[in-house]
Amino acid sequence: MREFVVVGHDAPTTPTFSLDDLPGDAGRLDVLCRCVTSAFLLSHGIREDVRVHLVLGDEFTITFSGGELRRLNPDERSTAALIRTALANRDDAVGAVAVESSPGVSITRRDFAGLLQSLARDGTVIQLAADGDPAIARAPPSDPVFVLSDHRPFTDAECDTLAGVTADRLSLSPRMLHADQAITIAHHYLDTDGYKRG
Amino acid sequence: MREFVVVGHDAPTTPTFSLDDLPGDAGRLDVLCRCVTSAFLLSHGIREDVRVHLVLGDEFTITFSGGELRRLNPDERSTAALIRTALANRDDAVGAVAVESSPGVSITRRDFAGLLQSLARDGTVIQLAADGDPAIARAPPSDPVFVLSDHRPFTDAECDTLAGVTADRLSLSPRMLHADQAITIAHHYLDTDGYKRG
Repeated sequence: MREFVVVGHDAPTTPTFSLDDLPGDAGRLDVLCRCVTSAFLLSHGIREDVRVHLVLGDEFTITFSGGELRRLNPDERSTAALIRTALANRDDAVGAVAVESSPGVSITRRDFAGLLQSLARDGTVIQLAADGDPAIARAPPSDPVFVLSDHRPFTDAECDTLAGVTADRLSLSPRMLHADQAITIAHHYLDTDGYKRG
Repeated sequence: MREFVVVGHDAPTTPTFSLDDLPGDAGRLDVLCRCVTSAFLLSHGIREDVRVHLVLGDEFTITFSGGELRRLNPDERSTAALIRTALANRDDAVGAVAVESSPGVSITRRDFAGLLQSLARDGTVIQLAADGDPAIARAPPSDPVFVLSDHRPFTDAECDTLAGVTADRLSLSPRMLHADQAITIAHHYLDTDGYKRG
């Protein structure tokens, strides 16, 4: 399993935003939408062995599960609509209960720290960071949980949380990338077994 | 210079499409928009040494030039608006005249064959193809012109055109990728000098 956690710092936690203005009215939800599609979509199909967790407002986590996911299209707007539908179910997400809002998409009332502690039990938590160790020098782990931030850096509190569960801080590229580009390259790194030649 | 040519088979050649339905009404223009942003955007800035050429309906070419480009945002909708503005200037694109519709964006009445012949003079034309030779075994060329198709494969006529000017048919990944993902990995391949270690 490959998991990606993306923290949305300005993202909405209610379903009242407009699909016509994802960068503005919806708090850069376009960034998170591109992360979801980068994580799942291949040219002819979907990566079933992937889960993506979007942390919204450090209050809700929306999880996309590749094995069950339906109706995911490549464009931002339709992905934003799936997120909006999940947020429309937020009041049913009580305690640890995950509410499935569409096939393979669910919402849970879970913050960043709670999510990471849960994922660290079965996976290897890796923080993607421009100043991390170059990934190219490492063999990829078998069940990676890549943690990324949206268009903002991690807060100090998030860094503290990460420090408690993170096996490695890795850099995928010599350039500073957008989160969705980093996800594409993380997949490529795993698809090629760390860019192995021959 | 890094150049990318993306052929849009269903893309509009007039500015009458709606920004609310890029996958449908605008003939999968969402694909081309993502190619543009993948080609140019870094986390904090733009790749100035890049040009992207979108071939629309084998009739018009819209060229984005990184050195002059302004107002390029990461979301699909605003990129589609730049393309729509370029198409609104289509009637002024006569003969070989390029009409600049916004800073760094211009439209020319030029088909796929004409564009490739022009680019082949100064660059190394490389067709990205799933069944091409693995890029990982090669050193990247210095002035690559990567040629990709949108969500459809190249037509037989386009393959014939490519065969006349293409130095190599390369595969970037063992998986079948979307065009924008391939652009991200092509940049990564060049940024790391072919994934060089150490």
